Amino acid sequence: MNLLQQTIEKIESLDQDMMAKARQRVDSLIKPPKSLGKLEDIAIQLAGITGKLFPAIDQKAVIVMAADHGVYEEGVTNNPQEVTFAQTLNIAKGITGVGTIAKVSGAKIVTVDIGVKEDIPSDAGVIIQKIKRGSGNIAKGPAMTRNEAIQALEVGIQIATTEIQNGVNLLGTGEMGISNTTPSTAILSVFANCEPNEIAGKGAGLGQGGLAHKIEVIRNAIEINQPNPSDGIDVLAKVGGLEIGGMAGVMLAAAANRVPFVVDGLISTVSALIAVTIEPKVKDYLITSHATDEPGGRKASELLGKEPMLMMDMCLGEGSGAALAFPIIEAASSMMKNMASFEEVGMEI
Amino acid sequence: MNLLQQTIEKIESLDQDMMAKARQRVDSLIKPPKSLGKLEDIAIQLAGITGKLFPAIDQKAVIVMAADHGVYEEGVTNNPQEVTFAQTLNIAKGITGVGTIAKVSGAKIVTVDIGVKEDIPSDAGVIIQKIKRGSGNIAKGPAMTRNEAIQALEVGIQIATTEIQNGVNLLGTGEMGISNTTPSTAILSVFANCEPNEIAGKGAGLGQGGLAHKIEVIRNAIEINQPNPSDGIDVLAKVGGLEIGGMAGVMLAAAANRVPFVVDGLISTVSALIAVTIEPKVKDYLITSHATDEPGGRKASELLGKEPMLMMDMCLGEGSGAALAFPIIEAASSMMKNMASFEEVGMEI
Repeated sequence: MNLLQQTIEKIESLDQDMMAKARQRVDSLIKPPKSLGKLEDIAIQLAGITGKLFPAIDQKAVIVMAADHGVYEEGVTNNPQEVTFAQTLNIAKGITGVGTIAKVSGAKIVTVDIGVKEDIPSDAGVIIQKIKRGSGNIAKGPAMTRNEAIQALEVGIQIATTEIQNGVNLLGTGEMGISNTTPSTAILSVFANCEPNEIAGKGAGLGQGGLAHKIEVIRNAIEINQPNPSDGIDVLAKVGGLEIGGMAGVMLAAAANRVPFVVDGLISTVSALIAVTIEPKVKDYLITSHATDEPGGRKASELLGKEPMLMMDMCLGEGSGAALAFPIIEAASSMMKNMASFEEVGMEI
Repeated sequence: MNLLQQTIEKIESLDQDMMAKARQRVDSLIKPPKSLGKLEDIAIQLAGITGKLFPAIDQKAVIVMAADHGVYEEGVTNNPQEVTFAQTLNIAKGITGVGTIAKVSGAKIVTVDIGVKEDIPSDAGVIIQKIKRGSGNIAKGPAMTRNEAIQALEVGIQIATTEIQNGVNLLGTGEMGISNTTPSTAILSVFANCEPNEIAGKGAGLGQGGLAHKIEVIRNAIEINQPNPSDGIDVLAKVGGLEIGGMAGVMLAAAANRVPFVVDGLISTVSALIAVTIEPKVKDYLITSHATDEPGGRKASELLGKEPMLMMDMCLGEGSGAALAFPIIEAASSMMKNMASFEEVGMEI
């Protein structure tokens, strides 16, 4: 049995008993019932995930997966492909969006080369797990083989598991990959069974004329590859990307190890759809963050069945929105731990 | 010239030159243009408020104003009035919602008795600035005299100014006052020129029959007192509350001292409407936080012309939503300070 299969089999349902206890505790706190809204829901979810009423949420990490995309050659973006390489180095240095946001909550950034075209220097602070030098051009064939898709998932599983073993108790992921809104939108079209033009956006930069072309490329990719929407690995292999698989692997590992996981924007949500298609129980371990400004974001959140909490008009990727949501998860945990109950303060309700 | 007048005259427009510099800096950072959305807007606003490109946002405080309301006797809530007293003590202990949320960002809680009915013990960690033992019953007459309204504003000004002099560089406010959604909704009806039934909610607890009665009480309060919507002090005095005035004073002081201010939910937003009616330039110093679950919240935000960032279904008050938004303001500041520019990393756009 391979690592992926082992991980999937390890994923259990949430601890319902602990969630009932958590609901009871939340309802006993000195506030009008339900008045802390989603903070209460998160606190209860954390209890169900961890099996603890007062889980520690103090070691946070964003795992950023970087990879290139063969579909770049179709002209689906205005950005040079080399930006993937350059920004991967910058992410590892902590000087990009995600790093500067993560600084606020003291979260660690773990940068992974899972398929960047160029060689990443070994002293760049990037974990090198390159499966290949960018995925295949989905407009002409599959992004990767089924084996490579499993490998991508397993890279995510391995890296997340190592972080969890080292004490991380709140995870998020992000990505860097020029052109990756193209495969993401393809995946979303497949799962949502909708036309790409309903959900395609300009990504990190694309003129209006380019958008029509991008939609055509996505349509072709689906037509040529015929991904099976009920098989997450098939969708990933045919119209996905290496970093998209890596992120889905991180989510599978988080669920298998009962660690809460914060989803980022469009691409991260699409990865979540892959993970949930592979194992539906993963969904219970996910917490949303922000509503991406990318057009597909709303559809992706709807499919996942999770409403975002932050309305920031952001669409950077890198896990920036997940990092921004970490303090909210910490606040839910702090409420649970530090807020008094009516009984404790001798008040009657 | 009294302290209120002095404070109002000290309020200047935002520093447009610094905002232009900030926009330039934001646009030079290694990300697609506008991709950090509202974080970019906040960073630029912070530059305009403080006159600094890289302002320090590291000493945060939530000033919680507590007062009782004469309108309580009309039966507009199911909660006992003594909850104001009891929760004021708990807020000062840090064991309520706002305290446990503020813990996450290391924000200080400053609790102020500006009009609680009972005597607050002197060793409770509460600043005693009691103007009177609860406001008058607005269903029968004004909440307070015009002089008392000015006093309430000045209490807020004094306390905020002291905090700012002690180094606080990010402020929020919240409140504790059983029945205070009733005067808040009255104020909002006056400013929005709308019927109370369009915006009234159940506050911290009220049955459906009670809501109809509450709406009737609000309607009477406006009818009897005839507040002048273009005179913020008049509205505050006639259908407001002491803590509502205190919070508006905090906002005036924040603006006068060029300190960014985070608005909380319904009651805090209504206070902001009072402050902005007194001096429209205050608005530029305000940053929103969450969309309250109280029905009037949306209308209040619309009137203020500021869209909330956090969708948490919260309606606790106490400044809990403001405290939850502090890390977002810090993230905007961190982006500005710590994110590299294309030029700095030698990348071409």
